[in-house]
Amino acid sequence: MAASASSLLAAAASSSCAAISSRLPAGAPAAASVPSASRHSCASLRASPARRHRSRFIASVAPTMQPPAESRVSTVVDVDLGDRSYPIYIGAGLLDEPDLLQRHVHGKRVLVVTNTTVAPLYLEKVTWALTHNNPNVSVESVILPDGEKYKDMDTLMKVFDKAVESRLDRRCTFVALGGGVIGDMCGFAAAAFLRGVNFIQIPTTLMAQVDSSVGGKTGINHPLGKNLIGAFYQPQCVLIDTDTLNTLPDRELASGIAEVVKYGLIRDAPFFEWQEKNMSALLAREPSALAYAIKRSCENKAEVVAQDEKESGLRATLNLGHTFGHAIETGIGYGAWLHGEAVAAGTVMAADMSHRLGWIDESIRKRVVDILEQAKLPITPPETMTVEKFKSIMAVDKKVADGLLRLILLKGPLGSCVFTGEYDRKALDETLHAFSNN
Amino acid sequence: MAASASSLLAAAASSSCAAISSRLPAGAPAAASVPSASRHSCASLRASPARRHRSRFIASVAPTMQPPAESRVSTVVDVDLGDRSYPIYIGAGLLDEPDLLQRHVHGKRVLVVTNTTVAPLYLEKVTWALTHNNPNVSVESVILPDGEKYKDMDTLMKVFDKAVESRLDRRCTFVALGGGVIGDMCGFAAAAFLRGVNFIQIPTTLMAQVDSSVGGKTGINHPLGKNLIGAFYQPQCVLIDTDTLNTLPDRELASGIAEVVKYGLIRDAPFFEWQEKNMSALLAREPSALAYAIKRSCENKAEVVAQDEKESGLRATLNLGHTFGHAIETGIGYGAWLHGEAVAAGTVMAADMSHRLGWIDESIRKRVVDILEQAKLPITPPETMTVEKFKSIMAVDKKVADGLLRLILLKGPLGSCVFTGEYDRKALDETLHAFSNN
Repeated sequence: MAASASSLLAAAASSSCAAISSRLPAGAPAAASVPSASRHSCASLRASPARRHRSRFIASVAPTMQPPAESRVSTVVDVDLGDRSYPIYIGAGLLDEPDLLQRHVHGKRVLVVTNTTVAPLYLEKVTWALTHNNPNVSVESVILPDGEKYKDMDTLMKVFDKAVESRLDRRCTFVALGGGVIGDMCGFAAAAFLRGVNFIQIPTTLMAQVDSSVGGKTGINHPLGKNLIGAFYQPQCVLIDTDTLNTLPDRELASGIAEVVKYGLIRDAPFFEWQEKNMSALLAREPSALAYAIKRSCENKAEVVAQDEKESGLRATLNLGHTFGHAIETGIGYGAWLHGEAVAAGTVMAADMSHRLGWIDESIRKRVVDILEQAKLPITPPETMTVEKFKSIMAVDKKVADGLLRLILLKGPLGSCVFTGEYDRKALDETLHAFSNN
Repeated sequence: MAASASSLLAAAASSSCAAISSRLPAGAPAAASVPSASRHSCASLRASPARRHRSRFIASVAPTMQPPAESRVSTVVDVDLGDRSYPIYIGAGLLDEPDLLQRHVHGKRVLVVTNTTVAPLYLEKVTWALTHNNPNVSVESVILPDGEKYKDMDTLMKVFDKAVESRLDRRCTFVALGGGVIGDMCGFAAAAFLRGVNFIQIPTTLMAQVDSSVGGKTGINHPLGKNLIGAFYQPQCVLIDTDTLNTLPDRELASGIAEVVKYGLIRDAPFFEWQEKNMSALLAREPSALAYAIKRSCENKAEVVAQDEKESGLRATLNLGHTFGHAIETGIGYGAWLHGEAVAAGTVMAADMSHRLGWIDESIRKRVVDILEQAKLPITPPETMTVEKFKSIMAVDKKVADGLLRLILLKGPLGSCVFTGEYDRKALDETLHAFSNN
């Protein structure tokens, strides 16, 4: 299993940049300072003149770029999935551009799914953007309670209730306005309502913008495990208005950074090095730093998803630290920790185990701990997580196959990982004992 | 809308037989008496020598055929959906052939989903078939309450609970053992559990064997409407052991016949004529008559589904009578009438409306009433269904698009229909008033 997973990863890596393209709106400046991440993150970008041209396009979307006068879209990342392909728009003030949203609405009826925190901030603006100069469209909304602990079947039924009561038909569009929980629930509701209607993602947290809104994983939690019920279902577009981060609490911002760090560790060493240098800028919400981190994260995610939509191998690597992290979230009760907080502690555990196996140098393990500490994220699980609790929850992880728990572990130089069930069980035991009580 | 739907149907009809093939197991007799339905049901079967050859294969699977010594599979109908294609096995005693089932089981863990009526009859036998000479496979089961009124989210959660508690992983297989309700719920559970696991359909009612187990429509009811929450999700195979009909109550048998009649009316006039001649044989459970009705129904369904899996047009025609029928089921409470009973009354209403529109002759309308009466099915809705009740429930039907209710109506000679929103509203009103109280 490990061998085939490893060779899949190796094969995939060699063509990983062919799967996406980044476009600039007309009129965008063609030259700007180029972060090293863009130049070196993907070997195949340097493989041919055509790819080098595409590379320049990516490179030109630099943090210091000014948006063109006619649109605030600073970057478009395409997720290439054949007839299910879609664009990710990234920029400041995109909710002030009605046309962007409206071009992806199908039918005349829209249901906005949001929560009690986000609705007072952005629901009116989104409704305006959907209906401005567009009197044919009518907008309904359903406002769910906020938090991971509501990502359950009872709350999901409220979305179906609203959709049925509003007599929405197959030609309607669901819009997810909020963080990862809203995106996951709205997406699954869109996948299942009338066996599938259109939907649009408007992520308003860094976590959702860099990770959960991209790639079509939707679902809800089961009391015994995270995301155990759901669907692969792709949106019509993802619209990332970076201005929405202005209202995001610090703790939520840090949570999103945990996933940004992940991309560097699993496949993009220059991006990780960029983060080491720019973490204080990210925490200070420096707009160009945030925009670059979001863009590069979406590009990494789009590349992986385009090659392995249904997670037969490569895509699983996006779950570095998540098996430990999900166990923490389930073990201490959904919502007690933010997702990225649990992932941060889980990433440290995965790095620790990789080092115990002799797969990475101590220096890499230390850099993982350092960058997450710098981001003010937890680097150990909560004390209530016992070894036994970890083991029993990890046994129902989706990456178990025929009883064997497969993990994403770091292996080799910075930016390299494997997805494998072939590891010494002793290392896993030692890591669990080092990080939790008996 | 109507024009494009009609032309879609016309275009589809001209190639409708290319989409499926019927295979015979090795050793099956090559010649037998050929029912007229097989020879004339599809114009394109006569179009080329290659197709004629395929036609002979279909034709040779006649009701009087003896199964070959080594297998009781009398017919295999392939549902052609690219990489999601699968076989439908039809024959007597197929549950006594462990290999048939086992070749479609993925992984080592199986969850059989069944109900309190079917479990005492067939669960032991199916468990034996899954595990005979196959000690690596372990079988769990979940036994749901029986009936349409339990096709809801609460009951569905029992399937997820069992799957999670049993620590099933992505390489497991769900098996639906029962009628349409079990197939729809197990299929949706398989689609959503861990975002999709393998599943197998073992339909044990005529309704499920001729219709609901084929084509991948899965889902549950919402209190306000039937099948409003679900997924398109195809099984690995459908295994129809016609012996299971021996335990089916008469009322359930008649319910299934309503769907058999439907195939004749919408696209297969010779099959309808065969039914008119053989209805008493079907009601008397004459094995060869039942086997032929099942085979020809599956072939019709497979042809339609292969051309229009996601119901963008053609597939909707399989819902003749269902918009009225679903309204009856929802209006009087799920389970009060069997699905086929509601469809029968709905089919009479659709024929009545088609006649009022001048789209079919009175003789066809009368033949519809006669054949359903002969099958001992209701030909009028229950008295509690008022015009208002029909209208309010039909407004949330899945075939509403941008507020316009599209219907499947008969039009032209026997065996022809349209799926259209362009009809005189007065005819619909008149039909509703003719069949229900104000």
